[in-house]
Amino acid sequence: MTRPIFATPDDAERAFYEAFARMDIDALMAVWAEDEEVVCIHPGGARFNGLSAIREAWRQLFASGVKLRIRTSQPIRNQAMLMSVHSVLEHVTVEGDEQMSPPMIATNVYLRGSQGWQMILHHTSPAPDTDGLMMQDAPRVVH
Amino acid sequence: MTRPIFATPDDAERAFYEAFARMDIDALMAVWAEDEEVVCIHPGGARFNGLSAIREAWRQLFASGVKLRIRTSQPIRNQAMLMSVHSVLEHVTVEGDEQMSPPMIATNVYLRGSQGWQMILHHTSPAPDTDGLMMQDAPRVVH
Repeated sequence: MTRPIFATPDDAERAFYEAFARMDIDALMAVWAEDEEVVCIHPGGARFNGLSAIREAWRQLFASGVKLRIRTSQPIRNQAMLMSVHSVLEHVTVEGDEQMSPPMIATNVYLRGSQGWQMILHHTSPAPDTDGLMMQDAPRVVH
Repeated sequence: MTRPIFATPDDAERAFYEAFARMDIDALMAVWAEDEEVVCIHPGGARFNGLSAIREAWRQLFASGVKLRIRTSQPIRNQAMLMSVHSVLEHVTVEGDEQMSPPMIATNVYLRGSQGWQMILHHTSPAPDTDGLMMQDAPRVVH
């Protein structure tokens, strides 16, 4: 496939979650930087380092064949010149079972290289429950 | 206290973990950037956003009075001009009980401002166990 170029970190993030929802491993891996230092941590899982290890972890996750719906909410972004860090809540439901589970909390880091913005880190862990999910200094608009 | 200035992300990280081990909340909070978008996620915990919410979470953690030893290992760093992301394993033991628990996996992000490097994100989640802790493409020297 032609490697996509993402003009903004948000474009890379959108492509990442669309590929996740489609269980399209090639599209998902195309969001990652070709960098030795890439890191991926799934909920409750090991730390995967390097593109081959990361691809294999996603392959195993997708191998279940369970169709997922995934949406994100409440992004908090902090962007510097060549790097951007996003904190988002991930809401995953199994297709056909619309029960709301507690969301996941994800940290996504993007690096700007000659090929646009690419993911270098994805770290996800379960939130405790739907109550007490976020503690913050001031009310924030929910996106 | 005089606000310290950290010349490198590693200096900020060292100060963070030293303050953590000493349960010194003022020193720990001095590592954080004065930024609305700061985010802290403790293992299994909620997402805390903003300095007041983050301070309160650490205060509650330290309120147990349990003395901890903490060391980090196997850092993976990715630094851009004004932002640096570190992935480390955290090894925490309770003083007097030297039993090794599975480590935590931490993502720490630092931003360079006019006051040097400061933490903007700390996301920690439990690793599954000591086996299968890291999956990676090639052997890495353990630090």
